[in-house]
Amino acid sequence: MRPSGRELNEMRAVSIETGFTKHAEGSALIRMGDTHVLCTATIEDRVPPFIKGSGLGWVTAEYGMLPRATNTRMRREAASGKQGGRTVEIQRLIGRSLRAGVDRVALGERQITVDCDVLQADGGTRCASITGGWIALKLAVNKLMKAGDVISDPLTDPVAAISCGIYAGQPVLDLDYPEDSEAGVDGNFIMTGSKQLIEVQMSAEGSTYSRDQMNALLDLAEKGVSELVSAQKAATS
Amino acid sequence: MRPSGRELNEMRAVSIETGFTKHAEGSALIRMGDTHVLCTATIEDRVPPFIKGSGLGWVTAEYGMLPRATNTRMRREAASGKQGGRTVEIQRLIGRSLRAGVDRVALGERQITVDCDVLQADGGTRCASITGGWIALKLAVNKLMKAGDVISDPLTDPVAAISCGIYAGQPVLDLDYPEDSEAGVDGNFIMTGSKQLIEVQMSAEGSTYSRDQMNALLDLAEKGVSELVSAQKAATS
Amino acid sequence: MRPSGRELNEMRAVSIETGFTKHAEGSALIRMGDTHVLCTATIEDRVPPFIKGSGLGWVTAEYGMLPRATNTRMRREAASGKQGGRTVEIQRLIGRSLRAGVDRVALGERQITVDCDVLQADGGTRCASITGGWIALKLAVNKLMKAGDVISDPLTDPVAAISCGIYAGQPVLDLDYPEDSEAGVDGNFIMTGSKQLIEVQMSAEGSTYSRDQMNALLDLAEKGVSELVSAQKAATS
Amino acid sequence: MRPSGRELNEMRAVSIETGFTKHAEGSALIRMGDTHVLCTATIEDRVPPFIKGSGLGWVTAEYGMLPRATNTRMRREAASGKQGGRTVEIQRLIGRSLRAGVDRVALGERQITVDCDVLQADGGTRCASITGGWIALKLAVNKLMKAGDVISDPLTDPVAAISCGIYAGQPVLDLDYPEDSEAGVDGNFIMTGSKQLIEVQMSAEGSTYSRDQMNALLDLAEKGVSELVSAQKAATS
Amino acid sequence: MRPSGRELNEMRAVSIETGFTKHAEGSALIRMGDTHVLCTATIEDRVPPFIKGSGLGWVTAEYGMLPRATNTRMRREAASGKQGGRTVEIQRLIGRSLRAGVDRVALGERQITVDCDVLQADGGTRCASITGGWIALKLAVNKLMKAGDVISDPLTDPVAAISCGIYAGQPVLDLDYPEDSEAGVDGNFIMTGSKQLIEVQMSAEGSTYSRDQMNALLDLAEKGVSELVSAQKAATS
Amino acid sequence: MRPSGRELNEMRAVSIETGFTKHAEGSALIRMGDTHVLCTATIEDRVPPFIKGSGLGWVTAEYGMLPRATNTRMRREAASGKQGGRTVEIQRLIGRSLRAGVDRVALGERQITVDCDVLQADGGTRCASITGGWIALKLAVNKLMKAGDVISDPLTDPVAAISCGIYAGQPVLDLDYPEDSEAGVDGNFIMTGSKQLIEVQMSAEGSTYSRDQMNALLDLAEKGVSELVSAQKAATS
Repeated sequence: MRPSGRELNEMRAVSIETGFTKHAEGSALIRMGDTHVLCTATIEDRVPPFIKGSGLGWVTAEYGMLPRATNTRMRREAASGKQGGRTVEIQRLIGRSLRAGVDRVALGERQITVDCDVLQADGGTRCASITGGWIALKLAVNKLMKAGDVISDPLTDPVAAISCGIYAGQPVLDLDYPEDSEAGVDGNFIMTGSKQLIEVQMSAEGSTYSRDQMNALLDLAEKGVSELVSAQKAATS
Repeated sequence: MRPSGRELNEMRAVSIETGFTKHAEGSALIRMGDTHVLCTATIEDRVPPFIKGSGLGWVTAEYGMLPRATNTRMRREAASGKQGGRTVEIQRLIGRSLRAGVDRVALGERQITVDCDVLQADGGTRCASITGGWIALKLAVNKLMKAGDVISDPLTDPVAAISCGIYAGQPVLDLDYPEDSEAGVDGNFIMTGSKQLIEVQMSAEGSTYSRDQMNALLDLAEKGVSELVSAQKAATS
Repeated sequence: MRPSGRELNEMRAVSIETGFTKHAEGSALIRMGDTHVLCTATIEDRVPPFIKGSGLGWVTAEYGMLPRATNTRMRREAASGKQGGRTVEIQRLIGRSLRAGVDRVALGERQITVDCDVLQADGGTRCASITGGWIALKLAVNKLMKAGDVISDPLTDPVAAISCGIYAGQPVLDLDYPEDSEAGVDGNFIMTGSKQLIEVQMSAEGSTYSRDQMNALLDLAEKGVSELVSAQKAATS
Repeated sequence: MRPSGRELNEMRAVSIETGFTKHAEGSALIRMGDTHVLCTATIEDRVPPFIKGSGLGWVTAEYGMLPRATNTRMRREAASGKQGGRTVEIQRLIGRSLRAGVDRVALGERQITVDCDVLQADGGTRCASITGGWIALKLAVNKLMKAGDVISDPLTDPVAAISCGIYAGQPVLDLDYPEDSEAGVDGNFIMTGSKQLIEVQMSAEGSTYSRDQMNALLDLAEKGVSELVSAQKAATS
Repeated sequence: MRPSGRELNEMRAVSIETGFTKHAEGSALIRMGDTHVLCTATIEDRVPPFIKGSGLGWVTAEYGMLPRATNTRMRREAASGKQGGRTVEIQRLIGRSLRAGVDRVALGERQITVDCDVLQADGGTRCASITGGWIALKLAVNKLMKAGDVISDPLTDPVAAISCGIYAGQPVLDLDYPEDSEAGVDGNFIMTGSKQLIEVQMSAEGSTYSRDQMNALLDLAEKGVSELVSAQKAATS
Repeated sequence: MRPSGRELNEMRAVSIETGFTKHAEGSALIRMGDTHVLCTATIEDRVPPFIKGSGLGWVTAEYGMLPRATNTRMRREAASGKQGGRTVEIQRLIGRSLRAGVDRVALGERQITVDCDVLQADGGTRCASITGGWIALKLAVNKLMKAGDVISDPLTDPVAAISCGIYAGQPVLDLDYPEDSEAGVDGNFIMTGSKQLIEVQMSAEGSTYSRDQMNALLDLAEKGVSELVSAQKAATS
């Protein structure tokens, strides 16, 4: 029934290539099917003004898409002079989600910026960015711990994200672009490795939904996140 | 236990003043406690390029806050040269939510722009904007129907929104600013008059949450929305 | 002869609602007929760099219009990415006019920002902004004096503004929009309570004018300002 | 008494060099003492959308200052990404003033853009721009008439502008920068060759002013404009 | 003598991975040592206004760098609201260089946009962009020819680019970042497969240079380009 | 053969008017035929952050064109909200070229900004800007030396620039606009008074070029620069 032939509760193949670029303190190219996102983590000693002197760390994120990551070319945001509403919304979500999994006292007064740049898009880029971004973040933190700059691990529980939706009347896991563009309901679920929720965003796209449908998607999401967390652990240990 | 002395499941007083400004096809000043939002609806014959000639209508929204709507003055967005990320995110949510309650075939090929301007803020401005924005939209549509430009009502089921959160460990309905700034979990629930869900956004702010907690907030939200829908019906009939 | 049926030297009804919003140190909603402007005054301890350390205070103003304050919707300036030329010109005039009535030594090294936001427009918004802005400013200063932060009143003489013009060949007081859009000459007169002039701006709009006509408008303006000053005093004492 | 040693009612030396640049349909370098403004007029067949098909012409103006036209270098507006409030205000004034002297029916459906670029500034740049801008405009119109594109002269009465102010308690004509920066009252007077008024802008800068003082400045302005108009006629005939 | 241990006339290892992304009509990841650039070519039927109806084709380019492509993170241009001077200069050079190798009549009235995005930088990114960009362009043109949309090959002679410079007093081929940041003279040489010159840019960076030195660099460049052209041919045939 | 009737190796008439504006520390109006550029040099005590405390000086440049410097009016960059790619590229070239001729130790920790504003354009504006910019720079440095603020001359060898190109198949010196718009190859050559090269930029515009052709243009450029350097010396001594 699904365009890709996948089962309703089947995620796309995940592959993670750490160290894809050499300058960043942490980097990973995450591929979820044909969605490819390059995530890098940059450590800086300065923090935003509002926490200066607090002893707390900060994690923030930026998101971008190469102009031809998509089926038709999109205008380059640097050329159009501003980040679009969708970009701003996504990068705020990534930052918020990653921060929810960080012990900011243990991190200490430093900032880590996670850049998520979509090289190729096929649906689910924001979820792939969170999942891959956590890996880049973890690799950067590992470097800090190895150097003795951070003593106690501020990232004890992974953060991962998956989309689910109602496609052709059925709850399905991990929408690709053909499904995403047709789905009646579309949700993003960000969770920890211990299945606590960090953020749920579930939008009607053409039809409203019931609490039962919401619960069905949450069940799928738990399955997906648990598989992603295994991949994250394998890539960072 | 709540700073305002309200019960856990008690919403703030709602008041709706329709026709607050005279030029717009629909207008309402909605007050939810000390949160006051002026909503106006503007009808235009043109539609966005991507639906031109489709026969479908469009509803979009813009959101703003007066510089001194808040406790300390915020920089005017027109002066700083762009809308902030929070503004962009909110106005996309308002537009998406209102559209979910519109029969775009019945509306016909025209656009209605709903402007939500916060005159005074005390938490929950995005929810008040959706609830009040629906009223302005309904009043504008009523005008179209009276004039015979629209035959069958494109707004059969109201759309309303309410925030809920975990405050001091307890699920509470309709957070005001003192609660919102302390809440561990914060959610916005957009529903129809018939209790179907349009959008759920639930974010961890400092602590993650369980599915049980999520369900407790959904229960509160249903109560709140049902009261708001009564107020909407009273104001627009 | 006038579209509104007013006498040539008759101003529109003025109403002033102080404390319209609660956060600002001073706030007033001024209504001159169907022109409604919300004015707020914000006190800050910092001053602009060019007077730092001088002991002098500063008063500045910003002006905005809600998108549907007018008969047809105007594009939101925050969305278009800059304030239009008209907006910039008006807010510079408001700031300059209010400053002319302030004893900046008595105010002390602090800044007061007066925001004038037009909720509904029917001509004369810049004049209403100055008249209402002075009220918000006065209320804020009263608060400073009550707290003992300012000893001698820096606002001893009110500042008010009124438009006059040549409409259908006759000098008329307080143009509303239907008159303003047809007037051959259009002037804004800012004065003190003691009838000293602060700013005169008189523009030919289609026909030039003589010194006699200029004097006729000044006579009308004196009458109008004197009525406005009474209303200002009533609202702030 | 004046820093320059001029009489109270004495204007600075005026010189006008027409044809200073070769590409523009009309061009003039106007020098009023040490204030030097290069004015060019460009004829285009298109008009702004709001008068398309009306048969009416349009005249508009832009104003700029070279970064080192002033005593200390100012940031280049093209580099800072926008025109400042002062620039916008001035160019709107120039355009409005020149238009007031144009018979737009006689001009026919075309647009003339007058660019006024200050090469060196010593006070009074907006007035010099209007006076010199009218010359560039006249030269461009002469070209149109010579070519038979315009039959009846749309510029029958010159437009000129001069500043006056209260300096050291005395009304003085044509403020230079040292006077302008100290003046208590500062006015710009735009008039026609037949002494009709086009625009009066008179601002208190530190002290308010009486109607008698206003009249004294108007008397000076009439004298100054009459001398400028003679110079304009000599340069364009 | 060179930090990398390379001979004076030795280029870095080149690798080219075509089809790196799937949506673009042509794509290639070019690696010159640690400089990695993802190049994509997008075919569109529209052309810029100035050649509309001419029957001629157009090739243009855009250039970007991921924020952490470099040793320290650079601000994202989309976030800072504009492309920096260096970016603008580089993308104009890429477009100009590629166009010089295109038979625009044979291409027909269509536009190809070549996006060059630096994933990792180690000197020579603009040259790698041109060399890799030509490959993406060629692959896209091949697709047009295969489909019969273009009959005669508009890309008969490859375009490639290499940097050379005076490093530690010696002419060297293909500067990497450690060399580039120390070089006294730095040049970029864009040539065709038949050794005709397209663009030479040679800048003194700390010391001026003689014509003899210029000629020495040109000799090196010819060697480098000839190796690059072989790689281009291998990748696109 | 040349539209102007000049010999192949004949430069346009050069005239230099120093002190054209009075505020700048150095100023010159350079005219190369009908290309007229006003150059000013501004001395400031601050330097860019990246050399603060180094004891080194800095020279930077900005470039602009008046809207009607050209045959048809170009949009004012300040109004369009950004400097175009061509402007950015040119001003970077001017700054780089002038810096190459400065002993930054001798200059001491101060910045000189050279503004080059084109009043009238007829080809070769960037070269005229460099040649004239060096004169303004020299005059400003002379002032510093006279005042004893700089002891040893940081500008011992002049910097000048000239364009050459292949026009109608022939190498020609100093292209004017009619030649520039038709030239198959176009180069800018920046040299010192002692014939050392600072920057060479040579672009194919329609046809590629050989090394022999490149050398022919370099020969012409040496002749042109030598004449310009004589004029520079005459103007600044």
